Amino acid sequence: MASQQFHGTTPPPQEAWQTDTALGHEELGLLNRYWNAANYLTVAQIYLQENVLLHEPLRPGHIKPRLLGHWGTSPGLSLIYVHLNRLIRRTAAKVLFVAGPGHGGPAVVANLYLEGSYSEIYPAVSQDAAGLRRLVRQFSTPGGIPSHVGPATPGSIHEGGELGYSLAHATGTVMDNPDLLVACVVGDGEAETGPLAASWKAPAFLNPARDGAVLPILHLNGYKISGPTVLGRQSDEQVSALLAAHGWDPVVVSGADPAAVHRQLAMALDYAFARIRRFQDSARNHGASEPARWPAIILRTPKGWTGPGIVDGIHVEGTFRSHQVPLSGVRENPEHLALLESWLRSYKPEALFDDDGRLLPELAALAPAGSLRMGVGPWAHGSTVKPLPLRPLEDYALEIGVPGATKHETTRPLGEMLRDIYLDTAQDPRFRLFSPDETNSNRLGAVFEATERCLMEPVLAGDDHLSPDGRVMEVLSEHLCQGWLEGYVLTGRHGLFATYEAFAMVSASMTVQHAKWLQHARELPWRNPVPSLNILLTSTCWRNDHNGFSHQGPGLIDTVLSLSGSVIRVYLPPDSNTLLATAEHVLQSKDYVNLVVVDKQEHPQYLPLEEARRHAAAGASTWRWAGNEQQGSSSGPDIVMACAGDVPTEEALAAAWLLQRHVPGLTVRVVNVMDALVLPPPDVHPHGLSEAAFEELFTQDTHVIVAWHGYARTVHQLLHGRRNPGRFHVRGYNEQGTTTTPFDMVVLNRMSRYHLAVEALHRAGGQHQGAQELATYCQEMLTKHEEYVLAHLEDLPEIRDWVWSPPQQQRTDG
Amino acid sequence: MASQQFHGTTPPPQEAWQTDTALGHEELGLLNRYWNAANYLTVAQIYLQENVLLHEPLRPGHIKPRLLGHWGTSPGLSLIYVHLNRLIRRTAAKVLFVAGPGHGGPAVVANLYLEGSYSEIYPAVSQDAAGLRRLVRQFSTPGGIPSHVGPATPGSIHEGGELGYSLAHATGTVMDNPDLLVACVVGDGEAETGPLAASWKAPAFLNPARDGAVLPILHLNGYKISGPTVLGRQSDEQVSALLAAHGWDPVVVSGADPAAVHRQLAMALDYAFARIRRFQDSARNHGASEPARWPAIILRTPKGWTGPGIVDGIHVEGTFRSHQVPLSGVRENPEHLALLESWLRSYKPEALFDDDGRLLPELAALAPAGSLRMGVGPWAHGSTVKPLPLRPLEDYALEIGVPGATKHETTRPLGEMLRDIYLDTAQDPRFRLFSPDETNSNRLGAVFEATERCLMEPVLAGDDHLSPDGRVMEVLSEHLCQGWLEGYVLTGRHGLFATYEAFAMVSASMTVQHAKWLQHARELPWRNPVPSLNILLTSTCWRNDHNGFSHQGPGLIDTVLSLSGSVIRVYLPPDSNTLLATAEHVLQSKDYVNLVVVDKQEHPQYLPLEEARRHAAAGASTWRWAGNEQQGSSSGPDIVMACAGDVPTEEALAAAWLLQRHVPGLTVRVVNVMDALVLPPPDVHPHGLSEAAFEELFTQDTHVIVAWHGYARTVHQLLHGRRNPGRFHVRGYNEQGTTTTPFDMVVLNRMSRYHLAVEALHRAGGQHQGAQELATYCQEMLTKHEEYVLAHLEDLPEIRDWVWSPPQQQRTDG
Repeated sequence: MASQQFHGTTPPPQEAWQTDTALGHEELGLLNRYWNAANYLTVAQIYLQENVLLHEPLRPGHIKPRLLGHWGTSPGLSLIYVHLNRLIRRTAAKVLFVAGPGHGGPAVVANLYLEGSYSEIYPAVSQDAAGLRRLVRQFSTPGGIPSHVGPATPGSIHEGGELGYSLAHATGTVMDNPDLLVACVVGDGEAETGPLAASWKAPAFLNPARDGAVLPILHLNGYKISGPTVLGRQSDEQVSALLAAHGWDPVVVSGADPAAVHRQLAMALDYAFARIRRFQDSARNHGASEPARWPAIILRTPKGWTGPGIVDGIHVEGTFRSHQVPLSGVRENPEHLALLESWLRSYKPEALFDDDGRLLPELAALAPAGSLRMGVGPWAHGSTVKPLPLRPLEDYALEIGVPGATKHETTRPLGEMLRDIYLDTAQDPRFRLFSPDETNSNRLGAVFEATERCLMEPVLAGDDHLSPDGRVMEVLSEHLCQGWLEGYVLTGRHGLFATYEAFAMVSASMTVQHAKWLQHARELPWRNPVPSLNILLTSTCWRNDHNGFSHQGPGLIDTVLSLSGSVIRVYLPPDSNTLLATAEHVLQSKDYVNLVVVDKQEHPQYLPLEEARRHAAAGASTWRWAGNEQQGSSSGPDIVMACAGDVPTEEALAAAWLLQRHVPGLTVRVVNVMDALVLPPPDVHPHGLSEAAFEELFTQDTHVIVAWHGYARTVHQLLHGRRNPGRFHVRGYNEQGTTTTPFDMVVLNRMSRYHLAVEALHRAGGQHQGAQELATYCQEMLTKHEEYVLAHLEDLPEIRDWVWSPPQQQRTDG
Repeated sequence: MASQQFHGTTPPPQEAWQTDTALGHEELGLLNRYWNAANYLTVAQIYLQENVLLHEPLRPGHIKPRLLGHWGTSPGLSLIYVHLNRLIRRTAAKVLFVAGPGHGGPAVVANLYLEGSYSEIYPAVSQDAAGLRRLVRQFSTPGGIPSHVGPATPGSIHEGGELGYSLAHATGTVMDNPDLLVACVVGDGEAETGPLAASWKAPAFLNPARDGAVLPILHLNGYKISGPTVLGRQSDEQVSALLAAHGWDPVVVSGADPAAVHRQLAMALDYAFARIRRFQDSARNHGASEPARWPAIILRTPKGWTGPGIVDGIHVEGTFRSHQVPLSGVRENPEHLALLESWLRSYKPEALFDDDGRLLPELAALAPAGSLRMGVGPWAHGSTVKPLPLRPLEDYALEIGVPGATKHETTRPLGEMLRDIYLDTAQDPRFRLFSPDETNSNRLGAVFEATERCLMEPVLAGDDHLSPDGRVMEVLSEHLCQGWLEGYVLTGRHGLFATYEAFAMVSASMTVQHAKWLQHARELPWRNPVPSLNILLTSTCWRNDHNGFSHQGPGLIDTVLSLSGSVIRVYLPPDSNTLLATAEHVLQSKDYVNLVVVDKQEHPQYLPLEEARRHAAAGASTWRWAGNEQQGSSSGPDIVMACAGDVPTEEALAAAWLLQRHVPGLTVRVVNVMDALVLPPPDVHPHGLSEAAFEELFTQDTHVIVAWHGYARTVHQLLHGRRNPGRFHVRGYNEQGTTTTPFDMVVLNRMSRYHLAVEALHRAGGQHQGAQELATYCQEMLTKHEEYVLAHLEDLPEIRDWVWSPPQQQRTDG
């Protein structure tokens, strides 16, 4: 263990050294006992099912049959929690606690129990002997609570299971939350991950004039599960230099002697808090134009501190061997049972709790009062959500005449809508757009009429809408964009993450984890709904002309579809007005992961606003104007052309047009699907159409040619449970692509209008006049295209005009 | 632009300043002209389709109809390439070039063309006027080449499309490649990503005694697509401090004056190379026990350097506006056409190429000779692959008597197999295991009998198998584990990435990108096959007792299944011996992404080695001993119980046993699927069973109850195209979970033996004696379980013994 020390890159300010702020002898004693209580309850949760206060000698029957949990990080988490309690009592600061090593769940639960907030939320876990017994028995047990910090943990917005996102979550949480301080514990394991490594950039994006503060506490205990960590093995100077290079002002607290560490940590927190308040005061009085050198604490304490030192002759405390359950087989091994008993008794439970299991009053007094306790902060429980002001969509809607006759960059009106949200929340900011530097590229640039890109670095002459006061968050890290947004929405604000479709897979795992969080959180009555996580994919596989194969991947749709239907939604609006209707819905929705996929380029526009609203509300509709069924006819179509997504819709419409023009005897219906989750049966997803509604669209037995934005086989997954699914013939992205023309993309993936029309003729059957001619024509066009591709290196024709412009659609139903 | 400077944290050694190594006036002139040639050809590729050498005035018809590509990063890439050529000529160093900003593809292609390697591989792109014309016309055109560095780019192992992995790939490439130097260009955009931020830790994992060297060149041009970057806007001192804190020795080269930058960069490369060789010499003579302070170059040059300065009154060179195509609408805009012409002529093409388009001899002489050229390095083209020695599986196979009667930690024998691979490659190292600190946890610890964990930091007394000489790579970053392995296998070595199933999604996007690379690479005859990317998921959703819901996610299976069947494989071995047979196959395979999913815990073992081999080869088999069909009977079963994965197999076997025991009149067949890709039709995946073989297993019309390791709906996707798919009834992971018992997990997800048996009774139909009793029994057991869960907080019974032990299977077919 490194020597005990207190050093920052700048000397602590005077106030941190004043007598009245230093930790006195008596307070230290109390504080240490409180910490003992937290550690005691942590060990008790992992091991005990009876005799929780050791009122009798420990017997095998008192031990749980399955020993699960993580001890190693727990004493450190409790140490930090206890000291934050002290800070809150002294300063009345509003503090939210993020436990990066969230697998130390029992430690956080122990502290919540000690401060009383746990019992308020879970009355059965009362502050008495019966509650204590329930506290330990519920841990890591079927029907009880999970071993990690998670939704069920009061005061938390972060599950420390998948490591990497604690600091990003903390950073998003303080944005537009000027009074909040987020104490973010980062374990040295997590510090090895990529997302966490990127998160140290936070000072470049946090403005002390309007944002709250993140206080990172890098808690180094030296080890992961079975090996050392890189930072854990480096010197204090090296680790300090790293944080300093990232723009932080690191303070080291290090040691294995509790009293010394208590004193150092108290001093470090006082120093950090004073420094934070100074930055904030200065920025709020004088503005801020460069990154604040925020304090950060590097805390080095032994892994499994205060636990068994040596077990079976092997060192456990201070090594990786204390990571999970330091003593195994306790029921069967009398020696381990004795070790456990002496470990538990080392905390002197009789000096912590009264006979009925109540924390002694002098210790209970160390917790902050009422609403300042970290377990009841309103930010974490969705209690601070305010609605998002939305102007009427009429302000942004495109005028539509003949459907498909005009083209427009589909996402541009959405940019205007977001601009007005920025304008209308300027006095009470609660909306942000997050993107890896693609706001303009995604045609959302209208937002820059209302705000700017945020960066706390010098603004140069050539910069485009850049300012420390901007609220458009651009950083070339999907992990940061999404992590910041997750922190922002989980604490009750609203936002949108706009990114390249293919690279949304970079943070796919975060999407999975967020959905899992929501799925459990929404079942907890004391958690209020929070704004949804909205992900907009705007540079899609079909239109990545500049970039090619690496940028073509619609996989996030599949990842999202696998998750619980209670929390996931997938929208594929075909044009601008349906996108607006979708946006209006998702921006007001709560507790969902909304995935919206639509391309940013110029595309044909189809639906006037009112139709778009109806279509969006239905999720899927027959576009009568695009087919040739007689109104009132009951005979049904010969073929259904279904489509989902902008490019597939254009191809399907063109195919339908070709069919009607060349084969007038064929009755064609066009169905557009913009909510992917209408396809499965209603028992699979709440949006699933009833059997009757489904067959109203797709008939009972007609063949359906589906042009689908993503992987074709996804549709078969969605259709499982529908009657007669074999009649659906799906074309979609099939991992064929390169840097090429949009038309070549649909040809390579066999989803072109010609492919669709040929498939439709094949499936419709019968002998329709003109069918053979159309099939021949389609084949000729595809051959012509192939010749073009083969010949272009010798003679480069224009391709857009002769195959890419869509046939105009006639609106036949009014 | 920052001032020109050359400074490292330590002064450059004497040799870098000696006259004979400095860049002389004449050489500078030649080198600058060579750079001009590269820049010229880059611009030409983006813009021209005719008149490539400007033998006549530029006209609109010479311009391509679609202008695609990225100019901004290109001049910097070419600058670095040109100077690496110089270094190679002077030192005969073996250098592999990794272009992090791989969207600067035309620059790399230009350099490959100039050095001649391009024409050797693509003879049609010859070194004359015809070849030049083809060079420019093929770029970003249908049938031509993509705009990014990618598989089609000679000498490359890295696609710079999805940013973040360049430095991790470079690091994996030099492992066990002692003579190789990887020059890795990192753009300042990429430097904002998480995976790249984590990659700076490389010095802690590279041993100069046995590994080659990575030379990072952090190329800061200040901007992403439309905004500045964090590092781009920081001072040289700040950026240097960051790299120094990560353990590198940074050298800054900065400026906008080509001559000055040439001189500085030449000196910096000489310095870096000398320092690298010194570290290597020292380590190879005296060993290494701490991280080498490897050199790194920070190169600051203007974005779009040498391009148009001002366009339409707006600054372009040196700003984000030069990111893609600095001059748009060149065909229509005469002013832009004139700007383009003067831009092109500024490179003086007549002083670079002769009339027939050949690079002038004095310039051609600046490229390295023959096999030292970066475009022909054998490492990048799979030319150095050596087979992996594998001992007979009999050395590791478990003895199996009654199937299911004994339990074993399934992955432990695989650890022994990997141990022997380490032993048998010790003299010629070409295998490594990569894992986020889970080798022991994954029961692969036998490898530590042969080697150790690698860390270039001090080894402490309590450490477990840790050494700078170890070849087990543990770092708590899935991105680094996978990125290192990708670099390792793409340069011809073998390896395995073992990780938690849920967290494999962290690097899912890398898996997608790697599969895309392989899909295109395997179509190129000049690329030799390289060892597969092997991913082993060992802590699965069904057995994450310690951790709960965040650790339960089988989504990578779905991500992989969406990719091209030509390169992906998914295996679910049910026990140890089938895992060994799978490992033997995947470790010898080439050009695949092999996903192997199997739990590490104790599970029943079923197949003796010979049967396991047959089963693995078949991909799916009927386990006759687990059913009750009469040998030779042609009537077929009443119900088929299919299963894939260890836990589902155990549950399906138990269900089959319950059915046979309680309902003897029911004929039951058990089919185990261990290769997921036998399920789709053969036109979808090469492993797809023929219709006859499929129906031989699953019959034509009998109902099939499927217990599946992953998301249930995945199976429906796989079965699409099979006849009568509605008879398959699938249970799998359904996003239900928490910290609970293994049995509760299968109950929560309705895949328990009791659920399966009830479903089988329901689907088999008919009035079989005992059926009603069994259904009642199953329901009773589930109720008992539910009561257990509800009651446990009051009275905690043992759960394992009464519901979790599987019925023993009788082997009935000998």
